[in-house]
Amino acid sequence: MARKKMILDLDTGVDDALAIAYALATPDADLIGIASSYGNTLVDTAVENSLKLLELLGATDVPVYRGLSHSSTTDNFETMQISMDIHGKNGIGDVELPTAKRPVEDASAVDFIIEAAHKYQDELIIVPTGPLTNLAAAMEKDPEIVDLIGNITLMGGALTVPGNVTPYTEANINQDPEAADYVYKHAKHLVMVGLDVTLQTLLTKNETQEWRDLGTEKGRVFADIFDYYIDAYDRLDINKNGAALHDPLAVGVAVDPKLVTLLPLNMMVTHDDGRVIGDPERALDPVKTGFAAVEVDTPDYLDRFMNYTNNILG
Amino acid sequence: MARKKMILDLDTGVDDALAIAYALATPDADLIGIASSYGNTLVDTAVENSLKLLELLGATDVPVYRGLSHSSTTDNFETMQISMDIHGKNGIGDVELPTAKRPVEDASAVDFIIEAAHKYQDELIIVPTGPLTNLAAAMEKDPEIVDLIGNITLMGGALTVPGNVTPYTEANINQDPEAADYVYKHAKHLVMVGLDVTLQTLLTKNETQEWRDLGTEKGRVFADIFDYYIDAYDRLDINKNGAALHDPLAVGVAVDPKLVTLLPLNMMVTHDDGRVIGDPERALDPVKTGFAAVEVDTPDYLDRFMNYTNNILG
Repeated sequence: MARKKMILDLDTGVDDALAIAYALATPDADLIGIASSYGNTLVDTAVENSLKLLELLGATDVPVYRGLSHSSTTDNFETMQISMDIHGKNGIGDVELPTAKRPVEDASAVDFIIEAAHKYQDELIIVPTGPLTNLAAAMEKDPEIVDLIGNITLMGGALTVPGNVTPYTEANINQDPEAADYVYKHAKHLVMVGLDVTLQTLLTKNETQEWRDLGTEKGRVFADIFDYYIDAYDRLDINKNGAALHDPLAVGVAVDPKLVTLLPLNMMVTHDDGRVIGDPERALDPVKTGFAAVEVDTPDYLDRFMNYTNNILG
Repeated sequence: MARKKMILDLDTGVDDALAIAYALATPDADLIGIASSYGNTLVDTAVENSLKLLELLGATDVPVYRGLSHSSTTDNFETMQISMDIHGKNGIGDVELPTAKRPVEDASAVDFIIEAAHKYQDELIIVPTGPLTNLAAAMEKDPEIVDLIGNITLMGGALTVPGNVTPYTEANINQDPEAADYVYKHAKHLVMVGLDVTLQTLLTKNETQEWRDLGTEKGRVFADIFDYYIDAYDRLDINKNGAALHDPLAVGVAVDPKLVTLLPLNMMVTHDDGRVIGDPERALDPVKTGFAAVEVDTPDYLDRFMNYTNNILG
């Protein structure tokens, strides 16, 4: 079997930063590029943050592409106050990083996804950790790729637990329910890593102290970024036990689904309230194209997460 | 291990009738009594229907108890038009059965549940297939029984699929969300058999014809009752592929959980919209007292269902 090729589609905030670190550290796939999205921050800020973080991590060979700047049903996007409260005004915990020496690529994120789908087909894993706007746009622009992309493993949604924006919807899905519905209904193989499991993988200052103790600039920066997020979770009363590793868990599951229990379920997203739910139209279809992560082996994942991050930050 | 003792708590409509047949036929538990509830029909009609059906099936040794006549937050109950459309005006497909020779018991369903909990403890399985009003009332009247009842396996709720009353709520839970929430939060071991799985076990007129072909009065009556339900599902556009075996599936799972895939999940019921969902307060609790059926082995269940029903109706 050929080596897996991974595309991250990030609205680069705090946990997206850790998704990058995890994707670079995992031996199970090559990170071939980062598509950028709006969400935790504006798309241009997401581009900048990804370029800066890749440079900090010495991964200047990973190209970054600009994606769509707003949802499929709106004509502009402004970062929500709650996103800035959680991720900082600059998206990465208000930690200042040097301006990246590299520019963003000329090609769009949508075209990059289309090209990679044709090139790598079943070997391609796409991991969106923000809105599904880019991916839906790529699928609609070139419907051939729907059956080419081997694996879409996304962070988003809440199937068996309440949402974090409303009781029904999770933040990423909430940004663009129509695009999400398109992807949930059309993807050949979709793995949902939602709040069902990500709220069970929490990081505390004990772990960020480990990074700090590595004595490197990378370790200090990532500890500062994630401490901002832990403090926000505490201050905003989201969780006093630590901050959720939403996005890096999706990367972990993308390369090793055994970290979670997957429920085979053909899902949809309601357009009115952005709720992920079993699709009644496809309930009796014996072919399941959707898989929802409903349980996670937390200690196993946290072990691996710390091994990988200590390795790349050390 | 001593033999399991089962109490059914029924709002005796069409699929409740099949729950009785299944419970009498299964070799895995003794049916020690039927508690009666409102829902598909008025509680008095549920009592009558259970007595008549038990007589038809020759099970005149199974006592029937009258339960509460309305939810914990209302002071009366009228059967909804949609319930009459699905179950018939008399709850059992407008099939006329002789008046039962036996009366209802003097003790209330609530006191019967309490007494049985003390007597049988871990061997007791309670299978509510209507509102959870009786069970919540018993638990509140005698909190000791909460830790005595070995197994509550209920038909109700919709966790990973839309509800059938609103997009969020299923009919049984909808009758009394407060009582349901109490039971979901307090039960020592709660197995939820909801629309997630019951909509995958459909019966058609091929199967009811098998009962008819048995050449018995019992077979004819059950075929007539269930055909009414199949016709209603078709007429009301609920399902053209057959009618769901909601309640008898719960009985099947109560004695053999291996028929389904159980997701360990501490659940709650929202009071505003009667939605069953993971309880955020208990999400990180390593002890799971709730288990949601999320997949079902449909052919295996239908095989067993037809074996049991052909046997008892023959």
